[in-house]
This record gives sequence, C-alpha cells and structure tokens, in this order.
Amino acid sequence: MKRYERHADAIAQLIHSGALRPGDRVPSVREASRTRGISPSTVFEAYYLLEAQGLIHARPRSGYYVSARLPGTAEARPAEPLPSQPAATSTGVAISDLVFEVLGLARDRDLVPLGSAFPGLELFPLERLARCLASGMRKLDPWNIVQSLPPGDERLRQQIALRYGVHGTAVDVEEIIITNGAMEALNLCLEAVTQPGDVVVVESPTFYAALQALERLNLQALEIATHPRDGIDLAALAEALERQPPHQPIKACWLMPSFQNPLGSLMPEGKKRELVALLAHHGVPLIEDDVYGELHFGPQRPPPAKAFDTEGLVMHCSSFSKSLAPGYRVGWVAAGRQATAVQRLKLMTTLSAATPSQQALSEYLAQGGYDRHLRALRRSLEQQQAIALAAVAQHFPRGTRVSRPEGGYFLWVELPPPVNALELHRLALQQGISLAPGQIFSADQRFAHCVRINYGHPAQHRLQAALATVGQLATRLAMGAAEHQASPNCY
Amino acid sequence: MKRYERHADAIAQLIHSGALRPGDRVPSVREASRTRGISPSTVFEAYYLLEAQGLIHARPRSGYYVSARLPGTAEARPAEPLPSQPAATSTGVAISDLVFEVLGLARDRDLVPLGSAFPGLELFPLERLARCLASGMRKLDPWNIVQSLPPGDERLRQQIALRYGVHGTAVDVEEIIITNGAMEALNLCLEAVTQPGDVVVVESPTFYAALQALERLNLQALEIATHPRDGIDLAALAEALERQPPHQPIKACWLMPSFQNPLGSLMPEGKKRELVALLAHHGVPLIEDDVYGELHFGPQRPPPAKAFDTEGLVMHCSSFSKSLAPGYRVGWVAAGRQATAVQRLKLMTTLSAATPSQQALSEYLAQGGYDRHLRALRRSLEQQQAIALAAVAQHFPRGTRVSRPEGGYFLWVELPPPVNALELHRLALQQGISLAPGQIFSADQRFAHCVRINYGHPAQHRLQAALATVGQLATRLAMGAAEHQASPNCY
Repeated sequence: MKRYERHADAIAQLIHSGALRPGDRVPSVREASRTRGISPSTVFEAYYLLEAQGLIHARPRSGYYVSARLPGTAEARPAEPLPSQPAATSTGVAISDLVFEVLGLARDRDLVPLGSAFPGLELFPLERLARCLASGMRKLDPWNIVQSLPPGDERLRQQIALRYGVHGTAVDVEEIIITNGAMEALNLCLEAVTQPGDVVVVESPTFYAALQALERLNLQALEIATHPRDGIDLAALAEALERQPPHQPIKACWLMPSFQNPLGSLMPEGKKRELVALLAHHGVPLIEDDVYGELHFGPQRPPPAKAFDTEGLVMHCSSFSKSLAPGYRVGWVAAGRQATAVQRLKLMTTLSAATPSQQALSEYLAQGGYDRHLRALRRSLEQQQAIALAAVAQHFPRGTRVSRPEGGYFLWVELPPPVNALELHRLALQQGISLAPGQIFSADQRFAHCVRINYGHPAQHRLQAALATVGQLATRLAMGAAEHQASPNCY
Repeated sequence: MKRYERHADAIAQLIHSGALRPGDRVPSVREASRTRGISPSTVFEAYYLLEAQGLIHARPRSGYYVSARLPGTAEARPAEPLPSQPAATSTGVAISDLVFEVLGLARDRDLVPLGSAFPGLELFPLERLARCLASGMRKLDPWNIVQSLPPGDERLRQQIALRYGVHGTAVDVEEIIITNGAMEALNLCLEAVTQPGDVVVVESPTFYAALQALERLNLQALEIATHPRDGIDLAALAEALERQPPHQPIKACWLMPSFQNPLGSLMPEGKKRELVALLAHHGVPLIEDDVYGELHFGPQRPPPAKAFDTEGLVMHCSSFSKSLAPGYRVGWVAAGRQATAVQRLKLMTTLSAATPSQQALSEYLAQGGYDRHLRALRRSLEQQQAIALAAVAQHFPRGTRVSRPEGGYFLWVELPPPVNALELHRLALQQGISLAPGQIFSADQRFAHCVRINYGHPAQHRLQAALATVGQLATRLAMGAAEHQASPNCY
C-alpha cells in the first residue's frame, strides 16, 4: 500500500464511520500535510483517489468536502439486478460463433478493455516471476521434465495442497493435477463425467466458456436461476434434480460459487455446504470453477465448495492466471474420485503443462511473498470497483441496475430493457471501448440488455472516461429505442 | 562433434568406403596419435566407439581390426520386418487402459528407458534455452501475453513459417497455430474434422497416442498395411477409400509419413505426393504427424506431405519437443482450411500456450544455432542407432527382424512369434529396463511379438548392456514358449 493510499484509506474510514459527514470539509492539504507529516503532493494524490471513488468532491477555491450521496449508501447507488429467470428446460448450445465474433472484435491493444476477461497486467509481479523462471530453470534437474508430466511437478502440487490446508480445506496431493490453466482443468473434468447428449447444470447467466465447452462436447445446458449477491438458487436446483426425466438425468453441475463470472455473486458458506450435500444426495459431480477465489475484498478467503465435500464428488478447478501469473498457463484441479480419469485425459490431449512455467511458479511460491502480492492486488481491485460503481451511478441511464461484488473485477450491469447490448457494444467499439454484451452469457441469449464490465485495469481516468462514454451511449439507446418503439404509432 | 567422434567418423568412412576392409588392422593408437596430432586417450575413445558400433574389434596384444561382419552388411544384420497385415475392417478402440498400465510401470528414474517415447535429455541445449527464457522474458512487453493467445506469438509463427520456406514448403503464417506440443495439435485437428462414430485411417502399427485419441473421441480405427521402410501401402489405402460404405466414409487419415512411430518408415517423396493426390481425390483431410522430421540421418530434411498439398487438406503438426526443447510444450499445426476451426478449439479447451515457452523459443530461433544443434543431435542419434543395431544383431534370438530407420530414435523389433512382448516387458522391468510392447500399437493388439526400442539415450554401455539383457530374456522366452507349446504332446 502506497503512502497516499494509506492516507486516503484513513479519510475513507472517517467518512464511513460517520466521523466525517456529508458536507463536512476535509482537512486542507496544508493542514493534512503538516499534521500527518506527509508531502502536499501525497495529500493531493489521496484526495484525487477519494474524489474518483465518489467519496469527496472539490469546491472551487474552497477545498474538498464529503459528498452528499456516498457511493456506499442506498440513495446513490443503482439497484441490484434481480435474480435471473431462466428457461425451465435444458437446451442444446450454439453460442460459440457469437462469442468468437464478440471476442475477436475486442482484441485490439488500443481499446479500453471493459469487455476483457483479464485484469490489467500491470497488477502482476511479472519481473519477479521472470527472475523465478530464470532461477527455477538454472536449478533444473532434467528429470524435472519427466516430473512435469501429469499429475505434474511434485513440489508445485505440494505447495498447492499446502495453500488449501492453510485455508482449511483438506486436499490430498495425489488428487491434484496440474493443467494448462483452469480452462483445461474445467474442460477435462467435464469430459471425464459426461457423454454427448447429457444434461449439465450451469448458472444463469454463466461464463460463456462454460457454454462453449458444453457446445463442443454436444451437451445440453440446464440454466438455473442465480441471485447476483448469493449465487445459484438451491431450491430451483433441487427441483431440477428431482424433475429431470430418469432417461436424461443431470450428469454434472459447472458452477462458480465464489465471485461468479459474470455476476460476481458469492455463495455464503452455509449455502455452499447445502449445495454440496444436495449434489451428494443425487450423486451428481460438481465442477467448481474457483479462479477468482483469491480476489476477495473481505478479510478471509471464502472457502470453496470443495471444503465441504466428503464424497470426492467436487472437482475444484483453479489457476494462477488471475491472481499471480497471467500467461504462464498454470492451473490445476483437485479432482477427487475423478483424479485418475482427468490425469489420463490430460496425458492424452496435451501431455503436460510447460516445465518452465511449473518451475517458475514453484520457485515463486517457495520464496514467499504471494500473500503480500495478493493483498495489494485485492486492494487495488476494490478501489477500482468503487471508481467504476461511482461512474456507473453518475453516467448510466435511469433504471440501470448493477451488481456489487465482494471480490473479482467484474460488474454486471442490467440496462433498461430497450437497450440492446450487442448494439451498445458495436457503438462502444467505435469509441475505442470494448464491452462483454449479455447475450454471450446464456444459451438462449436472454441477457440482451445486460453488459459485463471489467474494472480490473487500473488506469482510473481512462476507466472513468470510458464509463462516461458507455453511459451516454446507453442513455441514447434507451431513449432512442423508446422513441423507436413508439414510432409505429406515429405513422 | 567432439574430437574423438571426428576421429571415429574418419575411420568409419575408411571402412564403409572399402579403404579398410574386414580383417584389416586399424592404425595403432600410438601411430594414430602421432599422425593425427591427437592424444592417445582420444584415439582410445574413438576406437571404443567404433567397437561399440560393431565396426572394429580388439585382438588381445595385437590391436584393433575391422570386423568381418559389419553391421551395415547383409550377412550381419537381422532381416527387416515384413509389411503388416491388418484387419480389413474398421474397429472401435479400447486400448487406453493397457497403454496407461504399460506407461505407468515405466515411469521410474532408475530404469533404462528403452520403452520411453522421449530421447535423452542430455541431447538438448537446456542451459541455452534457459538463458533464452530469461532474456525473452526480460524483454517482454506485457502485451505479448495477449499476443500469446491463439493463433499464438506472431514472431514465433513467422520463424516457423520461415523454416517451412527454407525447406521448400510454402506455408502461410496465418494458418499456423501454436499449441501445447504436437499432441494437442493432433488432437485438435482430429476433433475439428470428425464426429463420434466416424472412421479414421491410421498406419499399422501406429503410435498408441493416435489410438487413444480415436478412443477418446469415440472414432473407428481403420488400420492400413504399412511397410517398415517406405510407409503406408497406397494401394491398400486406395482400396479402403473405395470400399468403405457410403454411409460411413473415411473422414480423416492420421499418418506419420516421415520416421513413423513405431516403425521408423520414411515415405519417399514421390509416394508422399501420391498420397496427397489420392486423399485430395477423395476429399479426405490428412492429419500429418511430423515430430521426427528434423531427425533425419540423410543430408536433406525429408519434405512433409504438406509440401504437396494444393487443397489445404493437409494439417501438418509438429513441435520442438523432440528436436530442441523437451518440456517447453511448444508445438504447432499448419492447419490449411481448418485453421479457424482449430484455433477456436484451442481457445475453448486450453486458451493458449504458455507465454514464457513461446518467448524462449522465439528468442532461441532469432539468435540462430538451431541447425548446428540439429546436426549434432542427428549425428548422435545415428551413432546410437548403429550401437543398438549391433547389440540386437548380437544378442537377440534367431529369427528376430529389425527395422533400420533413416532417422528418429526407435527400432521396431519383431521377435520370433512365441515371444509375448507384454511378458518380455514384465521380465525386463524386473531387470530395471522398460520396453514398449507391440500390443499398444494396434487396436486389436496384433503385434504381440514385437517391441519398440528407444536408442535415443546416449549412454552407450548402458544401452548395450540393456539390449544384451533383453536379448537373453527374449531368447529364453522364445525357447521356453516353444517348450511350452510342445508340452501338450508330452501328456
């Protein structure tokens, strides 16, 4: 945490505690500089940050004041999206073409990447990782290359098992298989427990890559109602498990219990426990996508559903790609009773994860400092979220709803229904901004008026400006569409 | 090439040219040391090498003499295996369990790895690669991580396209997709052009990973007769293409035209051209596995079948894993008209190949020296082959047939039919030696009396001793089995 961030934090706490109230004047720069023993420029930086977060605002020639409508208070922030209402029956998936079209358009260095699936690369210790890579490979015994074969480097698997243990989840080193990122882990798990035509449960909305995996393996998607705050609706899931005809049972659930993509929802611990018990009762395996689990804003890492698994039915998939080492392609699965099946599929399809990447991660974890990096990363993402929420509140059309996740780097924004997210995306691209339109998050493209916004790229002014632009475009579409809808009556 | 290897080479050339003939005395150590200006110990090392290759032998107190029966001459070497005679119809595949059982047993550092699929790691410039890794990552622009996404790092793809060009094969940078080794490339290609139940042509015998890929995707294998010297029987293939019923046409061929695994066969250029024309006539895509193409002993790299493709039907898969950088997991496919489909499958299943590995290879290729490394690697493998062939000729039972590949690092050994390769493998493991039993190279396990032997681990005495042991075990089995077969008559 930098000095100006510490100072901003102290002021923010005074505001949140009520010691400083709306309309109160914040200590002047000179005053703060003297009493705190920090330079005026540091105080300025702190105030700019607080201003961006919507907590204070400047009055010309007068100084900074606590804002009247705080982003954290009910009157200022847009409402939360309502729980989804997916179709009741399973469906084939044919979404991949649309997904690739959308993603393809967004792959341009100059775009403001609000549509990206990745956080900003400047948030990661790339230089230190490169040094770990070099020292890991210098120490390399060539036999390590053989050791890199599935299940993967022994030392790395031990370090991963240790992290599970520290967080209170008992995982056996032997069930951990190193993969090319979580994406491969998830795909292999799905392949291990399904046959073409089988039904698989996903959240509604769900990460488009899950839909693409289902499409690739010719599986049926059964989308289940999901709350933007606490995740999948267990009653709806229980009912689906009972209702499904015996000749076509649910063969797996692919869920993100912590910081779901795109909703950001976090299932409370008790609900995760219930989920695992429900699935165990039906003997249905859970493919748990937990790539954002380390990006919590609260003090504790939320336990994965895996923590409550006593049957070996939960396949917990994660990676270092979103939390430490983007591009290194090191993920894993703790695959429970499917460990052998997954390991064999891994061997058959891609043989092994790259030795240099495995060595680098193993070396980094052995040196220590991962948790320090994570703390800085989480704080940065939390600050960015405040900035993004404030900008959405300020610029987006009336009737907008927005999620308020307790971790990760996505907002799920529900725009007034006339807005078509694909059209908004097209217009935003023309302004140099990408978005992830809601249509790609459901097999039946039902989230046509929603967008997922990535706030994980720490360039505050760029983020604010881009959200102002998107808000204006959305407002215009909301109004234009209303006019357009009204127009038939005019003729 | 080391000094003693140069000297051994010079003597070998004198022998092969006939300047030194069987029974001739080789220059004494003192003589050679003086005339060549090299140390006596260097001469000794050279003579030990020639002796191991079966070219010369020592006579006590008399010196070294050219051997009467040279390993390169007809009277000394065992016969070549006959072309295979596979079943005429396609079949489902269920070989994976056996393959994993066999491979699982062989994963022990202390075994002599005659059953391994990899060459010896000491043959590769691992230290220079590690330096390239470090310098590649120091120069890394974080945007390269995004650039690593499929189709993959641009600079690396250009370098690969350039190598194709140098060898006379026109390949478009745009059709190259970087993958996690050739294994992933091959699997993605197969997935791109087939549906469950389809028929796919493979060689007989064929690489077990091809059979596993067919099994995983629920495909039917149609094995085609293959000659140990010049590869697949084109007449048999043409007949199969005609014969196959219209409701179940052949959807793809997965072949290794150069240095086939396990046979080592090399299709001559004209035959490759014919193959491509035949498949084009039937509109059948060729998945070309060319991971050993760079490991030729002759002066020129054999062109891939891809070189003769005018229709975009050949998907040429290769990697650096067997020729430069084991463990880095950098392979690729030049996928022709399937490029987009393969790129999408790659994105959906494993996202991208690791950035550090891609950077390291790109940096290495830019620095130059790949061809120098390859020359040394090829020479080393060729010498090892001579040693292995000599040991097989000396120690294996009468009636043994063995391939004599012009590249790669495998021998295909056909033992007298009573020998069961799985039993031989079991016995060899007890002696600390692994083998690849013939059963894993065909869907119907028909090569029960064959083994694939890896000679690519340059520890000459260990290789000789291991082959002597395997030869003795095989001889015992051949005799024991004969006794056993005879035994019913005794009762």
